[in-house]
Amino acid sequence: MVKQVRAARTRQALIVAAAESFADEGYAQASLPAISKRAGVSAGALHFHFASKDELAREVERAAVNSVAELAERCRFTAATSLQSLIHATTSLLLAVTRDPVVRAGFQLSGDPSRKNGAEMVRWWQQQVRDLVVEARDAGELADDVSAEAATMVIVAATVGFEALGTVDRDYLSAERMSEFWTFILPRLAASPASVPASAANGALAEGHLE
Amino acid sequence: MVKQVRAARTRQALIVAAAESFADEGYAQASLPAISKRAGVSAGALHFHFASKDELAREVERAAVNSVAELAERCRFTAATSLQSLIHATTSLLLAVTRDPVVRAGFQLSGDPSRKNGAEMVRWWQQQVRDLVVEARDAGELADDVSAEAATMVIVAATVGFEALGTVDRDYLSAERMSEFWTFILPRLAASPASVPASAANGALAEGHLE
Repeated sequence: MVKQVRAARTRQALIVAAAESFADEGYAQASLPAISKRAGVSAGALHFHFASKDELAREVERAAVNSVAELAERCRFTAATSLQSLIHATTSLLLAVTRDPVVRAGFQLSGDPSRKNGAEMVRWWQQQVRDLVVEARDAGELADDVSAEAATMVIVAATVGFEALGTVDRDYLSAERMSEFWTFILPRLAASPASVPASAANGALAEGHLE
Repeated sequence: MVKQVRAARTRQALIVAAAESFADEGYAQASLPAISKRAGVSAGALHFHFASKDELAREVERAAVNSVAELAERCRFTAATSLQSLIHATTSLLLAVTRDPVVRAGFQLSGDPSRKNGAEMVRWWQQQVRDLVVEARDAGELADDVSAEAATMVIVAATVGFEALGTVDRDYLSAERMSEFWTFILPRLAASPASVPASAANGALAEGHLE
């Protein structure tokens, strides 16, 4: 039992160390010896858990998706409407990018030219946003002249853009920026000002759903 | 004279070959021998023009900025308003990303973790968008409740997001997608529907300014 706990911890330390290395140096440059050193485990322990760098990267991508899926699920339960759930999910996502090296690496691997087929995270996020937008539309929360397709595209492009800009300027990954984004977008997106209070974006923060 | 022309051509071929290699394999993985081979020139010719991979990358970044600056300048001359100029510039940019390997590489180097300090292109683009938004505001083209800061942020994040998503799904880099984006954004951004016709985004395409 103690042995199993230790193995799980080692595995988790390796995933975090790999995520940090991929995000810092890029997939191609990150070496397995440097990753095991960063995790404080032996090369043998790394090879016991992961047969290759590709397997380690796939595990980082999977862990990143799981982590954000959990956040999104929590947002869905605490939000009163689908639009609010969407606001909470996008803000949680960007805060997770700043705080969680695994989530950050999940996104960065999507755009890393040295990591082929690493777009799992971005594809998953696109689907997640589309589902919430369609829910919002079906609940009558969207303005009549806004298509679910267009709304999905704008929200996905902006969040992926925030994440990419965050590597250049950390300020893009703040809750304030996300709040400004939603303050700009909501009057165009929502069926009526009443259906989503103007303070929805700020409210999401104040209510503490994003921690 | 013939010699100078040949030298300029070799230099240009090396910049394009380097751009393609950086975008395909990432900065770290792109090798100087592979770049000179791709350009069809000798290793000696590469070293005559560029002392290092870093110098080659800086030249790619500079060429990408120059290329897009020229496009943006052309948009400014052919557009009737600052908002139209902004619409044309964003659409031109994304078409250039699909067509010109140097512009594509300029953006990709910004997000490549193996290329440090490669964010020149993104910073330049941010400034370009801000200048046009401020011009539009000063000309009374923006809605009263939209700040230049918020508008700049949304447009920069979305265009950078489109570029990043384009590596996963080419469809994001089409003029149609940009047109959908502007159709969504304009009613929120513009001072009045009259100041920017609803067809502005499509109009930009129809008028052929983006070729």
